[in-house]
Amino acid sequence: MQKRKKSKHYHITSFQIIILGFLSVILIGSLMLMLPIAARSGKGASFSDALFTATSAVCVTGLVIHDTATYWSMFGQGIILLLIQIGGMGIVTIAVSIAAVSGRKIGLMQRSTMQEAIAAPNVGGIVRRTKFILKTAISVELIGTAVLAPVFCRDFGIFKGIWYALFHSVSAFCNAGFDLIGVKQPFSSLTSYSVQPVVNITIMALIIIGGIGFLTWEDIKNNTWHFKKYRMQSKVILTVTGTLILLPAIYFYFFEFSQMPFAERVWTALFQSVTPRTAGFNTADLTRVSEVGQMLIIILMLTGGSPGSTAGGMKTTTLAVLVSCALSVFRKKEHAHFFKRRIPDNTIRNAATIFLMYITLFLAGGMIISGIENIPLITALFETASAIGTVGLSLGITPELGIVSHMILICLMFFGRVGGLTLIFAAISEKASNGSKYPQEKITVG
Amino acid sequence: MQKRKKSKHYHITSFQIIILGFLSVILIGSLMLMLPIAARSGKGASFSDALFTATSAVCVTGLVIHDTATYWSMFGQGIILLLIQIGGMGIVTIAVSIAAVSGRKIGLMQRSTMQEAIAAPNVGGIVRRTKFILKTAISVELIGTAVLAPVFCRDFGIFKGIWYALFHSVSAFCNAGFDLIGVKQPFSSLTSYSVQPVVNITIMALIIIGGIGFLTWEDIKNNTWHFKKYRMQSKVILTVTGTLILLPAIYFYFFEFSQMPFAERVWTALFQSVTPRTAGFNTADLTRVSEVGQMLIIILMLTGGSPGSTAGGMKTTTLAVLVSCALSVFRKKEHAHFFKRRIPDNTIRNAATIFLMYITLFLAGGMIISGIENIPLITALFETASAIGTVGLSLGITPELGIVSHMILICLMFFGRVGGLTLIFAAISEKASNGSKYPQEKITVG
Ligand SMILES: [K+]
Ligand SMILES: [K+]
Repeated sequence: MQKRKKSKHYHITSFQIIILGFLSVILIGSLMLMLPIAARSGKGASFSDALFTATSAVCVTGLVIHDTATYWSMFGQGIILLLIQIGGMGIVTIAVSIAAVSGRKIGLMQRSTMQEAIAAPNVGGIVRRTKFILKTAISVELIGTAVLAPVFCRDFGIFKGIWYALFHSVSAFCNAGFDLIGVKQPFSSLTSYSVQPVVNITIMALIIIGGIGFLTWEDIKNNTWHFKKYRMQSKVILTVTGTLILLPAIYFYFFEFSQMPFAERVWTALFQSVTPRTAGFNTADLTRVSEVGQMLIIILMLTGGSPGSTAGGMKTTTLAVLVSCALSVFRKKEHAHFFKRRIPDNTIRNAATIFLMYITLFLAGGMIISGIENIPLITALFETASAIGTVGLSLGITPELGIVSHMILICLMFFGRVGGLTLIFAAISEKASNGSKYPQEKITVG
Repeated sequence: MQKRKKSKHYHITSFQIIILGFLSVILIGSLMLMLPIAARSGKGASFSDALFTATSAVCVTGLVIHDTATYWSMFGQGIILLLIQIGGMGIVTIAVSIAAVSGRKIGLMQRSTMQEAIAAPNVGGIVRRTKFILKTAISVELIGTAVLAPVFCRDFGIFKGIWYALFHSVSAFCNAGFDLIGVKQPFSSLTSYSVQPVVNITIMALIIIGGIGFLTWEDIKNNTWHFKKYRMQSKVILTVTGTLILLPAIYFYFFEFSQMPFAERVWTALFQSVTPRTAGFNTADLTRVSEVGQMLIIILMLTGGSPGSTAGGMKTTTLAVLVSCALSVFRKKEHAHFFKRRIPDNTIRNAATIFLMYITLFLAGGMIISGIENIPLITALFETASAIGTVGLSLGITPELGIVSHMILICLMFFGRVGGLTLIFAAISEKASNGSKYPQEKITVG
């Protein structure tokens, strides 16, 4: 925690800037989506529908009330794609990028906000970092578009094919999960491409690259194959990401998709394992997955992607820190550690707090929605986990829910994208810590 | 953590003593329950049924495969009651009590084991404490028996009535949840007494007294109404216990039992709120409660009672420490605190570890049972939460489960009663901590 001198008035923290930035973009996006030209019907969406869609796009969630391809016009889809790109990259990244490109001087306040937004370890070199992030993101998205274009051009013609390739490349890279394949069948996501290798591989690659975080790219770029030289955080992210793709894929292969032919079974198992930790596309009908499989997806959705990435959720590092904390307790070590690096005690407190917040909000939201909508609890929990993990997978109930449930999902999406701590730090004004004045007293747990 | 010099061989830790103690009593109990005279049929139970029942009794859980009243003979019921009393008071408490009463000298090792078993803050005065615990427990159980006797004597005659009063008093005080009312209708628990004020008040009082912990009694005895003078831990326990009785009762009153007449509604709401945090009696048919209500009960079951009590589960203090940790993070304090006392960082790591372990085991167990038995996930999760919280509430599936599921429940009951950390400390030999040798490195969470 840095302590900065500040005047009592007119002070706005970097956390508040991030929150206000997200809120403004959501509001502007909602108004744009209410324009008559945004919907195919030519009537414009209601405020609550527009707000839900804009929040879902900016928070890169992908939960939708209306099928994106059949309800929104090309203009509306363009707005949604723009909101995804802004939300995915982080509003501040975009803002400072523009400032940097336009040659204006960037102040310390902006740099510090940047640092919070991309979860960088320090303020130094933040502008260089931002340029690297922007360049990499655009390159990856364009490569993704180029690879996807032939498939979509074959299916939808040249113009629409290129638009589809761009839309899905950006949506996958930003882990947004919005799709336009609803023209085949509304809300069908990528199920019609479940055995198409190019679409499978490209979308999975984009999801993973987008989800491991900007700082991990830097490590990969700087240290290539020398894994030992990576930052501890990058090592943790890559290890956890790999594990959380492989293990669920094995489960899905053996227990969920056993009636499929071999090739489809492998693709489907792998894709359904990559997607729940915040991407939100699906190539299998999730309502047909067993309740145990749905619960596994809920756990993956709550876990989410990695910090400083386009992904939301509790974060892979949070889970890793908790596991490492447990191992240190089991082995009676005084400190938790990863790859021979000690984890600060403060980080463990933060991780425990985030874990508790996610579990509480996900359960409370699901129980309220299940109660007022009279739907099965597991279905409601699936939807709230999807919202708070900014995933966008759905068992199909979102369009039918009432306004209160939609508001709950909007709040959960916002919480999941902005990050619980950012939200709370923005709400509660900073104070010097004084807890240590109190004498220590033991309390027994467990 | 105390560090003690020890020889490499023949060393047995207090954690190992506690585990071995519980295991021996369970094994002896199982063998006794296999005797032909233990069952009404005169054939004796199978080993797996006897093991399940003995584990359930020693771990004061109350999950049963056979209805206690109709399957077991008076001898079998006596064995079960003895196992409940031993398990509830803690094996070590009993062992050392006997030693103390018989006038033998008690060594440091025994005192230190005692300390772990009753979660006392220090070794000093441990024998005096044990006598106080034993005296209080017996007094409370006898008072409970005396109050319940008239009701049961009216319903079942003098001899059976007194036996029933004793059985239910001990079972309630030890938070065991075993009952003999199955003579009216098997597995009906206390539903036939749902509007009987004496039974309601007495059982609830016994549950609460047994569940707040031995050390809290001491505080209440020493400081009577001077709440400010209480230990921080006692304050936390009483506050959390009160909150976790009141809030769920309000929910149950308004959302679950609204079709009942007023008096029954109040009693039922209150009783169903007191019982899930490890007692396990029920006065309402839980299969009729909504899924949201069942989820609320699952959360209460996982939370459990208070440390150093007859109750199991994750413990009220663990929940409180996590909430306090979250508040300290929100307010950017360097340390978590309660009632102007600082909580050691170590305790927060332990609490996060226990929370993670309980959630993981409860989910994993429920998912496996749901998968292999092909039952709804929420029903299976209800059963695993009941086992790991040593509660004993059931949606009625336990008797029908297969041997693998029974083994999973046995392991969860044992884990819940012994406490996850005791189990792991017993398995992993102590080592000096060396984690601090590593340099610290930041990692971003959430
Ligand atoms: K998403
Ligand atoms: K119980």
